[in-house]
Amino acid sequence: MDKYDTSLDTIFHALADPTRRAVVQRLVKGPAPVKELAEPHDMALPSFMKHLGVLEDAGLIASEKQGRVRTCSFNPEKLAAAEKWFDQQRALWASRFDNLDTLLASMQEGNDET
Amino acid sequence: MDKYDTSLDTIFHALADPTRRAVVQRLVKGPAPVKELAEPHDMALPSFMKHLGVLEDAGLIASEKQGRVRTCSFNPEKLAAAEKWFDQQRALWASRFDNLDTLLASMQEGNDET
Repeated sequence: MDKYDTSLDTIFHALADPTRRAVVQRLVKGPAPVKELAEPHDMALPSFMKHLGVLEDAGLIASEKQGRVRTCSFNPEKLAAAEKWFDQQRALWASRFDNLDTLLASMQEGNDET
Repeated sequence: MDKYDTSLDTIFHALADPTRRAVVQRLVKGPAPVKELAEPHDMALPSFMKHLGVLEDAGLIASEKQGRVRTCSFNPEKLAAAEKWFDQQRALWASRFDNLDTLLASMQEGNDET
C-alpha cells in the first residue's frame, strides 16, 4: 500500500498542470536554461518560477545556477515511481481477467467431465 | 502537445491523494459498494463521498445505484490516457540516449577512417 507515500501525492500534483507537464516534456529531451523554458508560456516570470518550484519540490526536475544562468534538468527517478504505480494497477486489473479465465476453464473442465 | 488536455489535469489531480489512490487500487480488483470502499478510511462519509466525486469527475470510476446500494467500478480508459503520457516521456527520454549512441558511433566511424 502506498497510503502514506506522500511522494506520489507531490508527483501527481505536480503533473496536474499543463504548464508543468510541458516543462517535463521539454526537459526529457535535454537540459535547458529557465529563460528558454519560460519562453513558450504566456505568463510572468515569477509565476513560471513557482511552477518550476513545484516540479523541483516533487523531485521531477533539478536546477543549477552557473553565473547568471539557471539551467534545469529532468530527473527520471520520480517519474519512474509514478509509472510503477500505474504498472501495479495494470497488473491487478489484468490478474482479475486471468482469474476469470481460470474460473471459466475450471467450469469448462467440470462440464467436460459430466 | 497536451497543453490543452484538461483531461490529464483532472486525472493527475484525482490521483494526487492517498485516499483516492487507495480507492482506485481497490476497484481495479473489481466493483464494490460505497460502504465497503469507505470502511478502511477514517473519515466522515460526506468527506469520503467528495473523494469519490473527484474520481468520478475525472472518469477514473463510475457508480450505479440499485435500491439503496451505490456500487462503484473502475474505468480503465482514463488510467490508460495517463499511462500514455508517461510512455511518451519515456520514449523521448530513451531517444535522447539513442541519439547520443548514434553520435558516438558516427564519431567512432570518423576516428576509424583517420
